[in-house]
Amino acid sequence: MQKDDIYKKIKALKLFHGASDAFLARLVSQAQMLDIEKGKLLFLHEETIDRFFIVTKGWIKLFRETVEGTQAVFDVLTEGAMLGDETIFQNGVTSYTAEAIEKSAVISLPLSILKEEVENNPKMAQAVLFQMAEINRQKDKELEHRTIQNAPQRIGCFLLRLPHENTEDGVLIKFPYDKTVLAYRLGMQPETFSRALKKLKQETGVKVHGAKVVMENLYQLSDYACPACSSEMPCAKQEA
Amino acid sequence: MQKDDIYKKIKALKLFHGASDAFLARLVSQAQMLDIEKGKLLFLHEETIDRFFIVTKGWIKLFRETVEGTQAVFDVLTEGAMLGDETIFQNGVTSYTAEAIEKSAVISLPLSILKEEVENNPKMAQAVLFQMAEINRQKDKELEHRTIQNAPQRIGCFLLRLPHENTEDGVLIKFPYDKTVLAYRLGMQPETFSRALKKLKQETGVKVHGAKVVMENLYQLSDYACPACSSEMPCAKQEA
Repeated sequence: MQKDDIYKKIKALKLFHGASDAFLARLVSQAQMLDIEKGKLLFLHEETIDRFFIVTKGWIKLFRETVEGTQAVFDVLTEGAMLGDETIFQNGVTSYTAEAIEKSAVISLPLSILKEEVENNPKMAQAVLFQMAEINRQKDKELEHRTIQNAPQRIGCFLLRLPHENTEDGVLIKFPYDKTVLAYRLGMQPETFSRALKKLKQETGVKVHGAKVVMENLYQLSDYACPACSSEMPCAKQEA
Repeated sequence: MQKDDIYKKIKALKLFHGASDAFLARLVSQAQMLDIEKGKLLFLHEETIDRFFIVTKGWIKLFRETVEGTQAVFDVLTEGAMLGDETIFQNGVTSYTAEAIEKSAVISLPLSILKEEVENNPKMAQAVLFQMAEINRQKDKELEHRTIQNAPQRIGCFLLRLPHENTEDGVLIKFPYDKTVLAYRLGMQPETFSRALKKLKQETGVKVHGAKVVMENLYQLSDYACPACSSEMPCAKQEA
C-alpha cells in the first residue's frame, strides 16, 4: 500500500477527521503494513505493545480466555476499525487478545506518536474523549442485548444491523463471517446458535441458505427482535 | 451537609484528585444536596440534564427499559459513585434511567462547570480519559462475566468483590441490597437468582441467612467462580 493510501485510510477514521497534517504525516512516515494469516495473533491479552492498528482487510476477533480455555468474545472487527489505541491509557498493556479469523491485513502505527498528540493537543484529547464515550455507549448496548434478548432475537438484531440488498428473491442479508465465530461474538455456544437460528426461521419466516438470509421485508426481523431492546428503530445505522 | 463536607466528598473522587482549587471552589459554590425517596427517579433515559451527581447515601439503580417494560440493569451505585457526568459528551442527553432503590442522597453539581474544565484544562481532560478507559475495562469485564459465568458463579463472583469480615462463625459477607435488585444487577430474573443461590450453596457449602453469607474461607467461593473468569485472583480490590 502506498503512503498516499495509508494517509487516506488514517484520515478516514472519525477520530482523525480534525487531526493536524503534521501529526498525520508523522504517523504515516512510521506506518507499516502487516499481513496476518488466519488463526495468527496480532497481540495477546496482557501483552505490552508499542503499536496500534487499523484493519484494512479480513476479520479480527477480540477476546479474553479463562484458565480453562473458555473464550469471551467482545467484538469482531473489520475494515476501518482501530484497535490497541486504548492502551495509551493502560501503560501499553492490552486488555484482550486479537486474532485474525481469516487472512487479514492491518496498518501498524506507533502508540508513542498518538500518546504525545493526545497529551499535547487538547483538540485530539477531546476527539478521543468523544470516541470513548461512544464506545462506552456501545458496550452498554451490547450488555443490554446479552441480558434482555433471547438467542434467536440476538441473531435477528445482529442481522438488522448489517447492510441489506433488495434482490428479486426479496431482501438479502449475508452473514459476514463463520457461524462459529458469530456464535461466540453473540455470547452463545455454537450449539445454542444452531438451535436459535432454527427458531428464528420458524418464528419470523426468514430463509437461510448458507451465509445468505432472505426475507420479504425487514419487519419480519424487527417485529421479532426489537421489542427486546430499548433503542428505537431504525437502528441499522447506529453503532451497537 | 456543610460546604466543607461537600468539598471533601468531591475531592475524594479519584477523578478530582489533581483538580485545581479554583475549579473545586466553583463546583462547591453551586452544589445542591438532594434527598431521593425510594422508587423516585433522578433522571430518565434520553432526558436532557444540566447537573451531574455524586451519591452520598443509599443505592441508585441504572437501567434501560424496552417498550415492553423489561429492564436491563447496568449497575447499582452507592456512596462515592458519580453519575451523569458522561453526558458532557452527549449534549447532556442521558443514556439510562437512574432510580433510587432505597432512600438515597446525592450532591447535585452543574455539568457546565465540568464541561468547561475538561475543554480548557488539559490535565482534567487527561483525568477524564483515564477514568473512561477504566470504565470501558469494567464494562468488558461485566460483559465477560455475563457471557462465561453461569448464574451461581456470577453470584459467587459478586460476593467475592464485596468486603468481608472474619467472625467467630467464619468469614461473613453481606448482600448489600435487596435480592430482586441484585438479580437484575447480575442480569438474571429473580426466579433464576433463587435457583442459582440454592445451587451455589450446594456446590460450595456456603450458608445463607437472610442477607448474610457465611463460609469457612473465601476459597469456597473463588475455587467455584474464578475458573470462569479471565482475571487473576485476588480481584476483590479490582474494579469489576
